[in-house]
Amino acid sequence: MSDKNFVKDLADIDKDFSKWYTDIILKCNLADYSPVRGCMVIKPYGYAIWEQIQEYFDKRLKLLGVKNAYFPMFIPESFLLKEAEHVEGFAPEVAIVTKAGGEELTENLIVRPTSETIIGSMFSKWIKSYRDLPYKINQWCNVVRWEKTTRPFLRTSEFLWQEGHSVHLDEFDAKESTIQMFDEYIKLCKDLLAIPVLSGKKTEKEKFAGADETYSIEARMHDGKCLQSGTSHNLGQHFTKAFDIKYLSSEGIEKYAYSTSYGISTRLIGAIIMVHGDNRGLKLPPRVAPIQIMIIPIASHKPGVIEKCREIKEILLSNGFRVEIDESDNTPGFKFNECELQGIPLRLEIGPRDIENNLATAVRRDNLEKFTIGFDAIEQSVKLILDEIHNNMYNTALKQLNDSIIEVDNKKDLIKSVDNGKIALCHHCGEIDCEKALQEETSIKSRVIYDYDTSKPCAICGKKSKYRVYFGKQY
Amino acid sequence: MSDKNFVKDLADIDKDFSKWYTDIILKCNLADYSPVRGCMVIKPYGYAIWEQIQEYFDKRLKLLGVKNAYFPMFIPESFLLKEAEHVEGFAPEVAIVTKAGGEELTENLIVRPTSETIIGSMFSKWIKSYRDLPYKINQWCNVVRWEKTTRPFLRTSEFLWQEGHSVHLDEFDAKESTIQMFDEYIKLCKDLLAIPVLSGKKTEKEKFAGADETYSIEARMHDGKCLQSGTSHNLGQHFTKAFDIKYLSSEGIEKYAYSTSYGISTRLIGAIIMVHGDNRGLKLPPRVAPIQIMIIPIASHKPGVIEKCREIKEILLSNGFRVEIDESDNTPGFKFNECELQGIPLRLEIGPRDIENNLATAVRRDNLEKFTIGFDAIEQSVKLILDEIHNNMYNTALKQLNDSIIEVDNKKDLIKSVDNGKIALCHHCGEIDCEKALQEETSIKSRVIYDYDTSKPCAICGKKSKYRVYFGKQY
Repeated sequence: MSDKNFVKDLADIDKDFSKWYTDIILKCNLADYSPVRGCMVIKPYGYAIWEQIQEYFDKRLKLLGVKNAYFPMFIPESFLLKEAEHVEGFAPEVAIVTKAGGEELTENLIVRPTSETIIGSMFSKWIKSYRDLPYKINQWCNVVRWEKTTRPFLRTSEFLWQEGHSVHLDEFDAKESTIQMFDEYIKLCKDLLAIPVLSGKKTEKEKFAGADETYSIEARMHDGKCLQSGTSHNLGQHFTKAFDIKYLSSEGIEKYAYSTSYGISTRLIGAIIMVHGDNRGLKLPPRVAPIQIMIIPIASHKPGVIEKCREIKEILLSNGFRVEIDESDNTPGFKFNECELQGIPLRLEIGPRDIENNLATAVRRDNLEKFTIGFDAIEQSVKLILDEIHNNMYNTALKQLNDSIIEVDNKKDLIKSVDNGKIALCHHCGEIDCEKALQEETSIKSRVIYDYDTSKPCAICGKKSKYRVYFGKQY
Repeated sequence: MSDKNFVKDLADIDKDFSKWYTDIILKCNLADYSPVRGCMVIKPYGYAIWEQIQEYFDKRLKLLGVKNAYFPMFIPESFLLKEAEHVEGFAPEVAIVTKAGGEELTENLIVRPTSETIIGSMFSKWIKSYRDLPYKINQWCNVVRWEKTTRPFLRTSEFLWQEGHSVHLDEFDAKESTIQMFDEYIKLCKDLLAIPVLSGKKTEKEKFAGADETYSIEARMHDGKCLQSGTSHNLGQHFTKAFDIKYLSSEGIEKYAYSTSYGISTRLIGAIIMVHGDNRGLKLPPRVAPIQIMIIPIASHKPGVIEKCREIKEILLSNGFRVEIDESDNTPGFKFNECELQGIPLRLEIGPRDIENNLATAVRRDNLEKFTIGFDAIEQSVKLILDEIHNNMYNTALKQLNDSIIEVDNKKDLIKSVDNGKIALCHHCGEIDCEKALQEETSIKSRVIYDYDTSKPCAICGKKSKYRVYFGKQY
């Protein structure tokens, strides 16, 4: 395959973003379509990104006193029915086991779309006293939501996620914990994925089925649409009352506890692709890239070239970097393109002249800048460059996000802005019906609440406003 | 609760092993029963053991060039039917999704009991040339086998496991890989879990449904029964032919590939409990213990005691040990019992007199030996002691295993030995019917093949023997 064709094979990101996304998924071996409707296969390169996210966030959770556990994937149908809003939200999209072990089941089992109910039933058994609280649990697992239209990573019938569940003494503690995890998600996006987010509370219409409040982070994709990338729910007493989660207070009074839940999923991989990628391919943030540095030997048949490449690889490996050498038979030009397509943050070219000069030729994936790095103390130089790449990727995405926000004060401008790939910021009455009507007409939904300014009327219906909200199209 | 009652609450390991096992599971907070038939909840202390196993084995797999991926949990019913032995083996115990998204499915979906079929269907898409081989994949996931009788960790309707799948050029490569992973499992049991195993090939009757050969590791539990703890299957061309996994050889000839699969599960936690535990409780091997060292302050109200405990904790933590201080209000005696019940390998008691003498009083969980450790270079002493504990636990279990093996040459002695909690080693004809008849009469099954000595006739039927086999009862 010639170098030219190689890049041409990718759809143009600005002309056909949807095709570009699918091309990236398949050509970078991130995922593949499976024979099961709406379910994807996460291939090793895609899964390695998920492992980086898991490693980072699992450490954070443990530092915050959250312990991992595992709960059954099957939920008795009757459990889902116990919380009214919850069942309404999830019933239409569940998968149901009706037969097992060669027999019809007496009670159908729901494959978990989320685990508030099954975990709630266990919490009610385990929590007895105020001394048991706060109780903080997390599980890494698969969940199933039978979606009508699916896209790899963004929306699939089965996906992988982390779901945290905590139980608290009172409203205040539950709210504090909800916001703590929400802050963790903002930090994860910024520090690990180089993704800036709109962050805030969801409107009444958009909150989680069974929550008092939902806090969400929303990333802006290249085409201007938003992607809900993580949510933290203050569940109040919805589930503690439904599942009888009570404790004896220090005064000896029996009280219902308060609970929260929060989750991020493999959807974040979709966000990475759609926020950072360009016409050359994927562009991976260095801290999450399975391969951070690709070494490409130039004139590899010349004496000493492969040896030097291997020496540098060993130095970088032993300093904790994720590094590989492309020793394939392809031409350097092909390898450069492949490196860019795969989104590898930094490539090092090492040939006879470089060796003579005691340096490597380096190319950054983020801005394609070419420069040299001395072999001496190369691990220190590489550390600095990867951090620079991370910061530059974050700042570039932040500028794009900020540039895309437009303040509007009427429905016409709101619709026009969003149709032009912008995110509209405007006053809103907060009424479910007002938002529903807009969505039915335009498929525009609120993203998150920006602030509680009420100085102007609702941009959509003209009634008294409750807050200012971001509106946008979504994945 | 008095110290005396505390231990009394545990059933006697030699009088009621089954009750003892359940007591340990519940009292040590390893797992709990769930409202879903046959499904357990793995609680944080139990899950932390699984995380240690995952961490160890995931690293080993990556060193061997195996990459993690994720495949759909749902398998179209028709896929299971493609390999005749496989469907026969698994069909009776699958859970089936018949409805999803509010509709009856046109094709039922099986919740994976294992993933040879769904992964095979993807391999046939991905593997084209001899250059793609060997292809080595692993996934950490949940699987479902609807069992009639269940017990936490040992046999549950849903469990967690690791399933590796590899594709190879020829029979030789596939066999080599099967044995490599089998060896890894033996090593894992010895180096991480301090568990010696019987290891070898399964008889025709006992091999995996759809395999040419199954290699198994079998640990001996305290009551003399065996537990199949890990299996590595040489699948030959069963699945490559059923799923059309072909490659173009270097000579340009299209050939069917060969494949393998191998797995270990949360069942290993059951093995740890049942191999090492005693009447004082759980006894965790140090390398897999979530808490390796518990520091217990003595006269903690005296000045300097808590401070010294925290100082020692920090030193041990910073040296990579998993260590905690029991700062609860309970009496030291209660804490000692709790420490033993929870199976914590080493406890350090630190009181005013210890501080004066610049040392801690230490008690090993494995042999209850009491001794002192100087505070100077305590991290080095602790490292040595934990290694000694590991070795002692392994050697103790190895002696028990070896002592339990009895050579027999007739059916009567075979049955008598096994009924007395022994493992019988004898010649066997290898006929499925011969083994089946024994099992139906006595519930005794073959464990693994010991060697291919044919100097004596089959101990069961008297016909010509094919090999020598271990026989025993099993979980």
